[in-house]
Amino acid sequence: MPIVHVYVWNDFSNDAKKKIIEGITNVFKNMGIPADAVEIVIHDDPKENWGIGGEQASAKFKERNVP
Amino acid sequence: MPIVHVYVWNDFSNDAKKKIIEGITNVFKNMGIPADAVEIVIHDDPKENWGIGGEQASAKFKERNVP
Amino acid sequence: MPIVHVYVWNDFSNDAKKKIIEGITNVFKNMGIPADAVEIVIHDDPKENWGIGGEQASAKFKERNVP
Amino acid sequence: MPIVHVYVWNDFSNDAKKKIIEGITNVFKNMGIPADAVEIVIHDDPKENWGIGGEQASAKFKERNVP
Amino acid sequence: MPIVHVYVWNDFSNDAKKKIIEGITNVFKNMGIPADAVEIVIHDDPKENWGIGGEQASAKFKERNVP
Amino acid sequence: MPIVHVYVWNDFSNDAKKKIIEGITNVFKNMGIPADAVEIVIHDDPKENWGIGGEQASAKFKERNVP
Repeated sequence: MPIVHVYVWNDFSNDAKKKIIEGITNVFKNMGIPADAVEIVIHDDPKENWGIGGEQASAKFKERNVP
Repeated sequence: MPIVHVYVWNDFSNDAKKKIIEGITNVFKNMGIPADAVEIVIHDDPKENWGIGGEQASAKFKERNVP
Repeated sequence: MPIVHVYVWNDFSNDAKKKIIEGITNVFKNMGIPADAVEIVIHDDPKENWGIGGEQASAKFKERNVP
Repeated sequence: MPIVHVYVWNDFSNDAKKKIIEGITNVFKNMGIPADAVEIVIHDDPKENWGIGGEQASAKFKERNVP
Repeated sequence: MPIVHVYVWNDFSNDAKKKIIEGITNVFKNMGIPADAVEIVIHDDPKENWGIGGEQASAKFKERNVP
Repeated sequence: MPIVHVYVWNDFSNDAKKKIIEGITNVFKNMGIPADAVEIVIHDDPKENWGIGGEQASAKFKERNVP
């Protein structure tokens, strides 16, 4: 532990995934938790599978891009 | 909040996803929760990744379709 | 399937939990999915375990109550 | 990996939790995956937080006990 | 219940998925829980979406294969 | 989005929860994602519910404390 599940719209770049993994691991390392104990899984799902305020993100956030 | 994760067999149509997002958001709206606070993610996984009663859904529910 | 995980602040009343379960089940029933196939789990976690915009919900939404 | 999240009604005995952890780890060990790579979390939630067929498990399965 | 979510690197073979589903279901059957009550979902995500010790599994475990 | 679920042993202090929430939110802010879009839930489960290498964390990591 900790186990961290991150849910984002696809398609984050490989560089962005790397930053998420490094950044979140550091948050725990800075609290004295060994980095090797931190396991992270990034789940990227298409925008049409996301609902915010009752609308699909593919409609509501059509223009918004991911890093 | 609330955050809702919905797990279904793939491939639900876009129309079905829309109905899930609208319908579940309304459940919370009817309880006085602002729609904008409701975030929903639909995860659709292939039938062979699902087990029910010890069998893969791809075998056990071969004939059953999704909306 | 479907499996639905609902994450909310505690403490929703028993009546509110009932409404969530009935309401979400109906969303799928209305799409032709048998009610008995719908399994829902409500996870209620204390507000200090929730972060929105980098702040704990216990601080940011101190006044907001749950149904 | 693998990471396994198990959701059950509370309150499973400590002995039952031990059996779940040993049993699931063995499933992966038998497939050639090192036991140390298997991380399991058991989440036990009260029956009134579970819905099956649109009803709370606390009502529908009142008589059913957990190991 | 129980509901079991299994997270693994892709691509496990269909035979491996079958073994996971049968094996985990048996763990619960051996505790007196009816097999039909056990629902399992296997989520397989690409190695670059996994972080262990702050590194992507695609880099750290490049040589390691899945069953 | 993003939605982040963090699973840890209980009982992390309130200060530690705050650091997790601030730290993870900053990881995404630094990538250009608005902080208000980041929702984090910390799930803290007792050590006897965690299995690592086939053993309960309550036995295997008896001496290890949380921040």
